[in-house]
Formats: sequence, C-alpha cells, structure tokens
Amino acid sequence: MKTHDSVSILIFNTSRQCFVVVKQFRPAVYMCEMDQHCPQDFESNAPETWCPLKGTLPASSGVTYELCAGIVDKAELSLEEIACQEVLEECGYEVPLAGLKRITSYRSGVGVTGSKQTLFYAEVTDEMKTGKGGGRPEEGELIEVVEIPLPDSMDFAFDETFPKTMGVMFCFMWFHNNIAPKLPEKSE
Amino acid sequence: MKTHDSVSILIFNTSRQCFVVVKQFRPAVYMCEMDQHCPQDFESNAPETWCPLKGTLPASSGVTYELCAGIVDKAELSLEEIACQEVLEECGYEVPLAGLKRITSYRSGVGVTGSKQTLFYAEVTDEMKTGKGGGRPEEGELIEVVEIPLPDSMDFAFDETFPKTMGVMFCFMWFHNNIAPKLPEKSE
Repeated sequence: MKTHDSVSILIFNTSRQCFVVVKQFRPAVYMCEMDQHCPQDFESNAPETWCPLKGTLPASSGVTYELCAGIVDKAELSLEEIACQEVLEECGYEVPLAGLKRITSYRSGVGVTGSKQTLFYAEVTDEMKTGKGGGRPEEGELIEVVEIPLPDSMDFAFDETFPKTMGVMFCFMWFHNNIAPKLPEKSE
Repeated sequence: MKTHDSVSILIFNTSRQCFVVVKQFRPAVYMCEMDQHCPQDFESNAPETWCPLKGTLPASSGVTYELCAGIVDKAELSLEEIACQEVLEECGYEVPLAGLKRITSYRSGVGVTGSKQTLFYAEVTDEMKTGKGGGRPEEGELIEVVEIPLPDSMDFAFDETFPKTMGVMFCFMWFHNNIAPKLPEKSE
C-alpha cells in the first residue's frame, strides 16, 4: 500500500496558554466502531442481519482529537513549508518558517504503510490568527479547531473517553518535559 | 480497509534495568524507503528505468524498533491474555496477567484503519525468561529481541538514526515520568 509521508505540528498558543488541536470525523474510525458493535453487517453481506445499534451509532463515535497534520505530497516544498501551510489551513494561524522547531520523526503504520512522520512544534499568539482554519471542506475534510488549556492537558492526554492519536499524547508529554519548565512564570 | 485492534507492551527488565523491545524487518518500511530512493521503479512500470541504488538498498533500511505487540484476533481472549501471549512469543518472558498495568489506549492510522490500540506496561526479571522469543518465523515474522539500557533510553528515543514507532518513544517517556521516580535506588 503506497502512502505519503506526513508532518504533524504541536501548536501552543502562548496568549491563552493552550494547545491547539483538531477534532476530526474519521470514516475509518467510525467504520471500525460500527464493525465492533454490528460485526455481521460487514462480514456476512446478508441484507437481513440485525443489530440493535444499526443506524444509531452517533457520528461522535468516529471523531478523534489529533495534531494539526498533513501529507507530504508536494515535492517542491520543504517539510517546514508544508507544515506552515497546514497550520494555516487547519487552524488559521500564520506561522513563519523560523517559528517551527523540529521535535523528531518516527515510522507509522509499520505493518501497512511504513511512512515517515515528522513532528514539529510551533508557538503562536492570538495576533497570528488570520483565518478560521477548518481545513478544506471541498475535499471532504470536517475539521474543528479545539483548544486544550495547558493545566488540563495531561488529564486530557490520558482520559480514554476522548479518542485521540498517539501524536497528541506524545507531544503533550514532550511539551511538559521540555517546554513547560522554561515557560515564563505567570504573573498573578 | 479492515484491520484488527491491537495491544502493545512496554517491557522493563528490573534485573538488568533495561527495556526489552523488538527489532523487526518491515516490508512496508523497506518499500517506502525504496520508493523514495528509486521512485521510477514503482511509478513507471518501465523495465528500463535505472536507479543508482537499485538492488543495493540494505535490508536494514526496512528495520524498525517497536514495542512488543500483537493484533486482537481471538474473541475468546481478553486484551491482557493476548498481551501475555505476545510477550512470551516475541520476547520469551512469562508474565502473569496480574503483572500487566494498563497505560492507556489510542487510535492509530486514523486515515486508513482507525483501529484501537491498547498499551500495557510489564515489569519482568531474568527469572521470568523461559523462552528465546523471536515471534513466529513460520508466519514470516523476523523479530530480534533488543535490550535498551535505562540510562540510554531517552537518547535512543530521540535519535532519529534508529527508526522506531511512536509507541516506543511515548512509552519510554511515560516510564521516565511515571515509573522511574519510584524505582528503588541502585545500591553501589
């Protein structure tokens, strides 16, 4: 299976001390949930199979919290340029190239795709918000920008009632270990 | 695309203060690397295309470091039972069910599969090693058990020259934040 490499960006809004992530309906996650609740729908192909949840599984079952991210599909652009485009398109912030810090890279879907994912960190302020974000609805993206306050972020990361990718969990922990200790003290 | 949920296990050997992970050749990762070095081989189908690296990309390009893991494909077994089986098959340690601590769960491959991954933590000792591990060669698995000493583990996690999954990085960081502070002091 051929897929593209991708970039993901941990965005921290220093004006309001919160992380900016995206909440996205993922058809694959929804089908996966449906499959577990009504397995016969998918496995038997029989029109008469019945499942108590059939047609009632809410769309929220297919929603996940994720880092702002995008695939690397433009050979003429650097990873950083693609990352900046995604931050603007999905979350509405204009981040300069120099505002990106590379965290690390890793392999994802090693059993299926094996593509390389690169993680960046970007600090933003309210002044850098020039658009609404939301992705490209014309391409079928259903993206909601969500802010997670810093004090709540580790509880969020480990609360399994919020379905999320490991990217979110990893980056929140990375931030707490590497960035939080250097944040200016809040004046109160 | 239908896939199974899975379990992954962070294994820490207290006898020798090291993590136990698996090093595995992943065809998908190898093809991905090959594709980047010799894209025309895959995209043109032309027999005459030439690439300087053709046939020379070492197998190590397809190797990744990963947590011990397995898919959830036996409805009669609990996640914990499957996790214990995988620890024994892949790494050779016999871990009792009660020896597993659930870390958290997350969604993987949200664009493709959306399956649910559950992470466990298991502490082992040399005395619990009853087999060689190595997975199921008859199913095509090429698994090598690798030990990462605790003092080197964070450098390893962020050293991009060792291709790895985010599961390894996340769990090493989780251990350092949550388990390491409670480890008994080493007597020297």
